[in-house]
Amino acid sequence: MSVIDELTTELARLPGIGRKTALRLTYHLLKRPPDEIRRLASALDDVAERVRACSCCGNFTEHDPCSLCTSPRRDASSICVVEEASDIMAIERTGEYGGMYHVLGGRLSPLDGIGPEELNIATLVRRVGAGADDASATNGAPAPGSAADNGAAADRTRVVREVIVATNPSVEGEATALYLQRVLQPLGVRVTRLARGLPVGGDIEYADGVTIAQAFAGRREL
Amino acid sequence: MSVIDELTTELARLPGIGRKTALRLTYHLLKRPPDEIRRLASALDDVAERVRACSCCGNFTEHDPCSLCTSPRRDASSICVVEEASDIMAIERTGEYGGMYHVLGGRLSPLDGIGPEELNIATLVRRVGAGADDASATNGAPAPGSAADNGAAADRTRVVREVIVATNPSVEGEATALYLQRVLQPLGVRVTRLARGLPVGGDIEYADGVTIAQAFAGRREL
Repeated sequence: MSVIDELTTELARLPGIGRKTALRLTYHLLKRPPDEIRRLASALDDVAERVRACSCCGNFTEHDPCSLCTSPRRDASSICVVEEASDIMAIERTGEYGGMYHVLGGRLSPLDGIGPEELNIATLVRRVGAGADDASATNGAPAPGSAADNGAAADRTRVVREVIVATNPSVEGEATALYLQRVLQPLGVRVTRLARGLPVGGDIEYADGVTIAQAFAGRREL
Repeated sequence: MSVIDELTTELARLPGIGRKTALRLTYHLLKRPPDEIRRLASALDDVAERVRACSCCGNFTEHDPCSLCTSPRRDASSICVVEEASDIMAIERTGEYGGMYHVLGGRLSPLDGIGPEELNIATLVRRVGAGADDASATNGAPAPGSAADNGAAADRTRVVREVIVATNPSVEGEATALYLQRVLQPLGVRVTRLARGLPVGGDIEYADGVTIAQAFAGRREL
């Protein structure tokens, strides 16, 4: 296989990029100066080399713990639980939330063989339970001394008062939220869920029935 | 700038990939094993390192001259002139053509400052004229001995009898074809152009007027 075919094959592995688009990208790159191709290659190498999951929250980071976990300006009393690290970026873009995050790395999906053990739930329980009594922390079963692994970050999460579950509004996201509530509530923490309802700019006429029903159920006084 | 941002920026340089798609690709890659990211990086490096333009036809190749120029099974009496190397792949896929190729590297486009000097036209004239009298070859003005640069490949193109112009059916492609005809015909070679007409599977109802007009002009006996 020629190096051109190899590059095309590798590009075609990317999501949303079929064989034809991969070929087009390859030929585009071939027409660029070699330095530009090398820059993309070294950006990829850097990412493969230096980016790891934060041992505290699970976000992608070059420095462990990540800048969100170590920032002194963020409110350590609240943890927002998301399915994927990319959700953090979407939430951070709004500038509406100033607390901590926790990345599950997916959602509960028994049909795909994804149970609580496949997700970052044990570390979440440990973070939430870190400041609670040992008695209530047994639910998360942290090994003695394991909280020390998180180092400075753990000190700052000793006072978690609210866990905001921001899993996707899907069946699996819902099931994951309910599971987290069952696991976290015994630790004496408030567990909340992002509001459901009509999206801004949406059209009631075209909204699906479940969304309209949830908008009714969640209606508020003006 | 973090390495994640850098990778996103580099990916967003690719055609058809905006900032959002680049981010999605980056997060996809972050979730893959580092070895998979490195494989894409090394495929890029290999291409930057090893792929060059064939000094004879201008096709992208790892070995100069390329496999099409050196293949003993291809008909050296005919050269198909294309705008881009990617056009060669489209033609080769049909299996209908067994001759040589020549890549112009674009089309004449005075508005974009692309004249004959910006395209691989001098090398084409040299290839076509290589077997002709010295007198007629002066049109392409090859320096004495320059034909020798092409080495073995030049030997095989000494008998070019037909140049098939396969530039795109656009205004610039048309202008390029006319220019090539003017330059090549004095060399005593037959210059032809790919047929224009209704594409197979097309619909007369939806075909544009120019295409229909050309289909009429190019009609053949049944």
